[in-house]
Amino acid sequence: MALVTLLTDFGMTDSYVAEVKGVILSLAPATTLVDVGHLVAPGDIRSGAYLLGRSWRRFPEHTIHLAVVDPDVGTGRAAMALRAQGHTFVGPDNGLFSAVLHDAEVEIVTLPVPDGASPTFHGRDLFAPAAAALANGTPLLALGAPLVGVPHRLAYTEPRYEGKSIVGEIIYVDRFGTLVTNLTPGLVPPYASIEVDGLDLGPLRHTFGDVPTGGLLAYVGSGGEVEVAVRGGSAARRLGLGVGGRIRARLG
Amino acid sequence: MALVTLLTDFGMTDSYVAEVKGVILSLAPATTLVDVGHLVAPGDIRSGAYLLGRSWRRFPEHTIHLAVVDPDVGTGRAAMALRAQGHTFVGPDNGLFSAVLHDAEVEIVTLPVPDGASPTFHGRDLFAPAAAALANGTPLLALGAPLVGVPHRLAYTEPRYEGKSIVGEIIYVDRFGTLVTNLTPGLVPPYASIEVDGLDLGPLRHTFGDVPTGGLLAYVGSGGEVEVAVRGGSAARRLGLGVGGRIRARLG
Amino acid sequence: MALVTLLTDFGMTDSYVAEVKGVILSLAPATTLVDVGHLVAPGDIRSGAYLLGRSWRRFPEHTIHLAVVDPDVGTGRAAMALRAQGHTFVGPDNGLFSAVLHDAEVEIVTLPVPDGASPTFHGRDLFAPAAAALANGTPLLALGAPLVGVPHRLAYTEPRYEGKSIVGEIIYVDRFGTLVTNLTPGLVPPYASIEVDGLDLGPLRHTFGDVPTGGLLAYVGSGGEVEVAVRGGSAARRLGLGVGGRIRARLG
Repeated sequence: MALVTLLTDFGMTDSYVAEVKGVILSLAPATTLVDVGHLVAPGDIRSGAYLLGRSWRRFPEHTIHLAVVDPDVGTGRAAMALRAQGHTFVGPDNGLFSAVLHDAEVEIVTLPVPDGASPTFHGRDLFAPAAAALANGTPLLALGAPLVGVPHRLAYTEPRYEGKSIVGEIIYVDRFGTLVTNLTPGLVPPYASIEVDGLDLGPLRHTFGDVPTGGLLAYVGSGGEVEVAVRGGSAARRLGLGVGGRIRARLG
Repeated sequence: MALVTLLTDFGMTDSYVAEVKGVILSLAPATTLVDVGHLVAPGDIRSGAYLLGRSWRRFPEHTIHLAVVDPDVGTGRAAMALRAQGHTFVGPDNGLFSAVLHDAEVEIVTLPVPDGASPTFHGRDLFAPAAAALANGTPLLALGAPLVGVPHRLAYTEPRYEGKSIVGEIIYVDRFGTLVTNLTPGLVPPYASIEVDGLDLGPLRHTFGDVPTGGLLAYVGSGGEVEVAVRGGSAARRLGLGVGGRIRARLG
Repeated sequence: MALVTLLTDFGMTDSYVAEVKGVILSLAPATTLVDVGHLVAPGDIRSGAYLLGRSWRRFPEHTIHLAVVDPDVGTGRAAMALRAQGHTFVGPDNGLFSAVLHDAEVEIVTLPVPDGASPTFHGRDLFAPAAAALANGTPLLALGAPLVGVPHRLAYTEPRYEGKSIVGEIIYVDRFGTLVTNLTPGLVPPYASIEVDGLDLGPLRHTFGDVPTGGLLAYVGSGGEVEVAVRGGSAARRLGLGVGGRIRARLG
């Protein structure tokens, strides 16, 4: 019994997600479907890649991850299926799978456009049938020709040293207003002091209980990056910061 | 193992959808549940009918579709179950199933109100048990008496000719701001020029790639109707149009 | 095959719910997952308790209910699993389970924090593995030590008599703008007249059909409490009332 996860920017108000699920269940009735989410902002490949990068590894090996944030549907961008790290991924070749392409042994095929496919809804007419075929046990290499060249990967800003500081940036803001940054704990020694928006947050804390309610803190979040939060509140609202905002770790 | 889809206006913040699912799974534990959506605007039968009309046909034959957009719960409106085109539908007799009543061979029964049913939550206490019974293999005709008369169907505005033009209207706006209209490709020859809000969009395009990013285009959408969109943007926001707005195809 | 419901304040835009589901399906692949909801306002234990209290009883016996509205994750609050009324519940000891602790025979264990658990995401690293173990048939008492003392329960305001009236308050507002109150039908005799915001709504009605469209009414809602609604509209918007607002039943 195959497991297929779904991550899209199709929203929750329209019928698009249901149409995709209907196609999969028509072709592969024994499939278990799990939503990763459908509220990625329209066309926001970067957020989609972040969410996929966090979630895929929590699912069992052999899970099939269907991800469609596809602002260039109806242009020449390639459609693909790939196997990496024991999981299989299906979606557009536009950087959405950057997080799983990091470590390398990857098999990739490009998917042909089926006859009669709607040119504006490949999620339903191209990617869903491909995911269903994989769920039914069709080998990856039977779905298309091997990708020529390399798949698209998003360019990420790396933290950089500025004098005795290392400066990173906010890469994601979650529902709670937590600011997820591109600083990783290996870059931030225990004696470093974290600074955001001119405020000194002190060293990395272990967890919320280390500050009083309403207090700001930086800590290593559940995705492995340094995060900034307000205990019982929203750091995004308190600080007025969003994606691209800066974070500094003073090393001395 | 039966498949039951759910389409309601119950929203995602309350417990109503879960209560419905709990009832179904209590009565028919082997059922697979798939959400079509629960964010139909409260009481918006017309949008519910559109979403149901798009989604039901994508599911396998014998799927049971539970649809509850039911502003007249607690009045004399009938509750019904019907079989059409190899699928089964359960919900109020208020026009919500208009799209499946179009083509004809339909069996319909009215559903009695179970003893003790909450008069304001037939979704949980009347429709969910009916869907569960169908999922367990109970014949449709065992659920109630054949409907006397004809089921309610929504009145739809048909496109109309105005001189050398055909004029339609917007029937749905999706998450991306795409304007779905009641024009169908059979009404719009290749030489016709599409006009919306005084803007000439030229002929029907094939897909987004036919215009530059930010460009407006009309094309045959994935539901089979003529749609108007902005590549990489929102036509609804650009044009300030919504449901009921006009679209014109100039035929000469 | 175990059934696990999920109720959280994790929202629908992030990957947190998917991470929890991935962990459960990795450890207990045959589990059926059903969302109760994830849009509880961040940290709103009271609303979470209300939604859980309404939904759990609709699911089959032996269902496992994972509920995580956990503003004090990362402090000393206990994590627990408990069995009550034939169902099993997993989540923080913060009052979220108040509704199931009312009637008595309850077995409770505290759950240890697994090695390597993220101190800010016990939903994924502590509660999900516990739910998966229960889904796999692990006995409750094998998951932790019996709770010492009593679990947290929320303090609820009880309706009180004021002269010849009984005065209650609004405890929940749903998507439709319906005001759910803490008055129960046993407290409101048929001759009582309901008053909200200075408006006399007359006696408890049976259902929406008892007033014209746009009319205000009070009735016994599907959760068993007295509710105030507008037929075809929103009582919350009409009256400008929310949680904590007062309702009065005049008894003479």
